[in-house]
Amino acid sequence: MLKKKDQYVVAVVGATGAVGQEMVEVLQERKFPVKELRLFASERTAGETLTFQDRSLTVQLLTKDAFTGVDIALFSAGEEVSREYAPVAVSAGAVVIDNSAEWRMKPDVPLVVPEVNPEAAFRHHGIIANPNCSTIQMVVALKPLHDAARIKRIVVSSYQSVSGTGKEAMDELIDQTRALMSFQEAVCHVYPFQIAFNLLPQIGAFDARGYSSEETKLVNETRKIMGDDRIRISATTVRVPVFRAHSESVNIETERKLSADEARALLATAPGVMVFDDPQRKVYPMPLEVAGTDEVYVGRIREDASIESGLNLWVVADNLRKGAALNAVQIAEKLIQAAS
Amino acid sequence: MLKKKDQYVVAVVGATGAVGQEMVEVLQERKFPVKELRLFASERTAGETLTFQDRSLTVQLLTKDAFTGVDIALFSAGEEVSREYAPVAVSAGAVVIDNSAEWRMKPDVPLVVPEVNPEAAFRHHGIIANPNCSTIQMVVALKPLHDAARIKRIVVSSYQSVSGTGKEAMDELIDQTRALMSFQEAVCHVYPFQIAFNLLPQIGAFDARGYSSEETKLVNETRKIMGDDRIRISATTVRVPVFRAHSESVNIETERKLSADEARALLATAPGVMVFDDPQRKVYPMPLEVAGTDEVYVGRIREDASIESGLNLWVVADNLRKGAALNAVQIAEKLIQAAS
Repeated sequence: MLKKKDQYVVAVVGATGAVGQEMVEVLQERKFPVKELRLFASERTAGETLTFQDRSLTVQLLTKDAFTGVDIALFSAGEEVSREYAPVAVSAGAVVIDNSAEWRMKPDVPLVVPEVNPEAAFRHHGIIANPNCSTIQMVVALKPLHDAARIKRIVVSSYQSVSGTGKEAMDELIDQTRALMSFQEAVCHVYPFQIAFNLLPQIGAFDARGYSSEETKLVNETRKIMGDDRIRISATTVRVPVFRAHSESVNIETERKLSADEARALLATAPGVMVFDDPQRKVYPMPLEVAGTDEVYVGRIREDASIESGLNLWVVADNLRKGAALNAVQIAEKLIQAAS
Repeated sequence: MLKKKDQYVVAVVGATGAVGQEMVEVLQERKFPVKELRLFASERTAGETLTFQDRSLTVQLLTKDAFTGVDIALFSAGEEVSREYAPVAVSAGAVVIDNSAEWRMKPDVPLVVPEVNPEAAFRHHGIIANPNCSTIQMVVALKPLHDAARIKRIVVSSYQSVSGTGKEAMDELIDQTRALMSFQEAVCHVYPFQIAFNLLPQIGAFDARGYSSEETKLVNETRKIMGDDRIRISATTVRVPVFRAHSESVNIETERKLSADEARALLATAPGVMVFDDPQRKVYPMPLEVAGTDEVYVGRIREDASIESGLNLWVVADNLRKGAALNAVQIAEKLIQAAS
């Protein structure tokens, strides 16, 4: 358990990445009680500077003795770094909130979305896992409906932005777009195929059944966070030429029938959810509008006439904020609220 | 019935539009037995010229006496023009193949995809309707599976390119992209919101249940073409910043269980279908690769473990060709094959 203090020593591992930078911003915006902020990265970007509370901080090279005195360590530097350094940070006395996939499905590691299963955060043994971006926004939108009517099955197709891959992917989308607009060839470094003006139906590696790792994460993480292994889930995940915010077309089948109005009312009062649903007046969530915001936006709420108790929803959230950095900081806030 | 001739007088109404131009190209490519090609458009674009068989043809203003002597009239000029002029063309003795939504759901008008329900074409009373682009590619991919295992339910989410809206929308995507790359504001004329680097979860107008006209078309037209009203369908349609080719994430539930291998084998020999499915080797359909081709590409074929008999498919086709112009010309080819 985190000891109660007025202010905490916070480390951000992977501070120069798209999510790491967002973590620093979110800590500042939310006035997180930071006594000292330590930024770490690999050799490639250590030495860069980031601004926090009007001070310029130099990013340090991550080493095994980096965590002395650290209370809370936010990791977003990939699975390998988390595998190697998260236990080191825990040994040094820090609580780790890890944004990689490394620890998420370990039975004794809580996987937490504060609006959905905040209580799980307190059962940690040093490491708390931050879920995958596409999972977080879906469970925030579905939890109130699950509580009210029990979701039996989910069929989800995603429209995921390039920032989910990282900063290099955002640059690649810009570079390819500029090249094509100048009648030059688009060059691919990050993605195997051109992403500008194209769609890639691959996010992560494929397993023998033909599912991508992103699709498997959506299935397994949703069940773990919702605490209900009976929910059946089928996922298709697709990369789209959008910079920021992921969108999801979500079809659910519920045990008890929910009308669209009932679902809208449940979501209107749900934590972290913004209902943005008046299509006749062109009110529906779009990634361009949702980018930079904190809420999970839900629109296009419709009864699905193809089954007895079904709903369609269109769910959009900023994958760097609620899908990653914000959720991690919200977990840390839960911990400090409960610290004693 | 069309009278047998060596060559036919063909009219293209809406010849300067994205689909109309493609119709002219497809007629030429497929060596359609054209005796004379007459091109028509509205005042806005009449007078423009198009090339057909190395000859430059001037687009004429559409008038009520345009169809004298015409055997086959391909319409792609919107619902109003079809409503007014298709009966005029029929009265003049032409068979109309109409790409608008105007006649599609009329009980005595056949709605035809040659790979799926070619026999319906011969039951026409002068007008044959060409289905909606997003419907055509879905039914071409699903018919072989339906025949083999009976599809009970379809949940589809679409990723539709801007060329489905028309040439102005393609220009808008280019103009907005150029503006944004020069740090200028994106201007919206065709779409209500920026489409560059964004997604619009609206295609067509919304009904009281919250469904867009494109979603309703996908449901109703699929049932009519498949000739099976028991198929239950739930659709979500979304515009994406892609120039050409529509993509669809399709989840199906079948009466008899189909393995992914069985589905792949059925589709490998299906007319008009290309199986492009080896994800481990990065073989899956993408709109950029499919644009300009004639087939419906199917990949990401996976068993859906969330139900007893389910499959997921990723279906991509060129919306201007198979989704519109090519399908219309294929219908005309069926008619001339059967002419006597």
